[in-house]
Amino acid sequence: MKIVKASGDVVPFDKNAIKKSIVRAGASSELAKEVSNEVRKKVSDGMNTKDILKLTLKSLKKNPKIATRYDLKRAIMKLGPTGFPFEEFFSQVLKSYGYKTRVGVQVMGKVVSQEVDIIAIKKLTSMVEAKYHNAPGIKTDKKVAMYTYARYLDIKSNPKNHFDNAWLVTNTKCTSQAIKYSKGVGIKMVGWSYPSKGNLQELIEKRGLYPITIFKNMPNKVKEKLFEIKIVLAKDLVNRSLGDLVKKTGLNKKVLSKVLDEAKNYVSGNNKI
Amino acid sequence: MKIVKASGDVVPFDKNAIKKSIVRAGASSELAKEVSNEVRKKVSDGMNTKDILKLTLKSLKKNPKIATRYDLKRAIMKLGPTGFPFEEFFSQVLKSYGYKTRVGVQVMGKVVSQEVDIIAIKKLTSMVEAKYHNAPGIKTDKKVAMYTYARYLDIKSNPKNHFDNAWLVTNTKCTSQAIKYSKGVGIKMVGWSYPSKGNLQELIEKRGLYPITIFKNMPNKVKEKLFEIKIVLAKDLVNRSLGDLVKKTGLNKKVLSKVLDEAKNYVSGNNKI
Repeated sequence: MKIVKASGDVVPFDKNAIKKSIVRAGASSELAKEVSNEVRKKVSDGMNTKDILKLTLKSLKKNPKIATRYDLKRAIMKLGPTGFPFEEFFSQVLKSYGYKTRVGVQVMGKVVSQEVDIIAIKKLTSMVEAKYHNAPGIKTDKKVAMYTYARYLDIKSNPKNHFDNAWLVTNTKCTSQAIKYSKGVGIKMVGWSYPSKGNLQELIEKRGLYPITIFKNMPNKVKEKLFEIKIVLAKDLVNRSLGDLVKKTGLNKKVLSKVLDEAKNYVSGNNKI
Repeated sequence: MKIVKASGDVVPFDKNAIKKSIVRAGASSELAKEVSNEVRKKVSDGMNTKDILKLTLKSLKKNPKIATRYDLKRAIMKLGPTGFPFEEFFSQVLKSYGYKTRVGVQVMGKVVSQEVDIIAIKKLTSMVEAKYHNAPGIKTDKKVAMYTYARYLDIKSNPKNHFDNAWLVTNTKCTSQAIKYSKGVGIKMVGWSYPSKGNLQELIEKRGLYPITIFKNMPNKVKEKLFEIKIVLAKDLVNRSLGDLVKKTGLNKKVLSKVLDEAKNYVSGNNKI
């Protein structure tokens, strides 16, 4: 049976890949086996990966915590369409790991002024390039790694700056050439499923740093307002009082109350994130 | 009166800009004045630059040689949709200036294998990155200059390679930051109208190195076949015999004869390119 990937590639349906991805989201192998079997029965020839994701999520409904994790990739995609919320999101992930961060800083290189997406400090000072793609099926390629390195060199070449290393963080997979190049020039690359330890989803899942976009029924207007006041983590949202949110966002109380109720309901019980 | 640029920007209509561009295409200032006056009379509020180009070309019809040159930017755009014909085209431009060239060469860098668009040799050996955009209104930006520099560094760092400098050649305008960065790291940048001496259109016009896409009535199928057998310069096409072209392209004699007649007609008399 053939299915269509987000990139447009046609590949054979792989039940084991589904099983593995469910295990990676934290499920027992028994649950993963059960769900992947259920999905296999419903998959038909020519289905795309998005449809298969829906089938999987439906099948996971009995276990909403796992479903949430499984849905993480989509939640990060919903941070878009621009890259700014992803920068803010990743800066807050870094903060949770003890880094001091600054987002969107102009740093004078030797040659030109450079925008550094995140400056992250914990013992070492790191220049973090955050590469966000808002369409599935795109990989972060060698060119991105190359201009990140050139930016780092320009900044390092100005004796007024002090940086110890450069990171390239992305919400997509990375091409093998991008990985090879980054390794070769000493850029720390963090992407979807890369590296095997310390990749993006691991950093998020380990400490439950889910973005607010994990909540399904949030109007775009609310999402954008929350980003503006730098609420990007789900756990930050549920800790806010309704009064405080109304005051800071200027949004309608009824709308916010609905969002907040759903969020609180989402993280209680089984669905703790 | 306001007009809309290809980038979407709304700017005041500037008769002098039209006049200057016609002079740059080789017209006398009297002709340029006459044509730009004629265009001004026909321009209406909210028109886009494409419509204005059409008006200008119509007005230039009495002087087809100038019209051809004026149409150069569009002809280069028609080399697309992919970047390969532009690489081949620019390699042939370089050949006409005495360079030995090779197109699309894999060169092992210190870290990864790098594709060099053109290797150009004349005393010095140059790595040429050819950046082709097939939509108007896009500028080549700092990121392109940065990954070009990183590619050059990786290649230079492998002691087996010998390159003396790097070029970045593009069919678009360049952002001021891209220009500043390239200057700072020593990349020779050649783009649309940049630098003031030795820019892309000057290199082409000085020796009449127009691409075959300057001929209006050429079916896409013919264009692609000609590219395949590396006929990209207008003057190379008109020097070929019909028999030779039929043999090498495998295209229909009648279709090719029409194309060749138009091309020969185009370059004869007033219209010599």
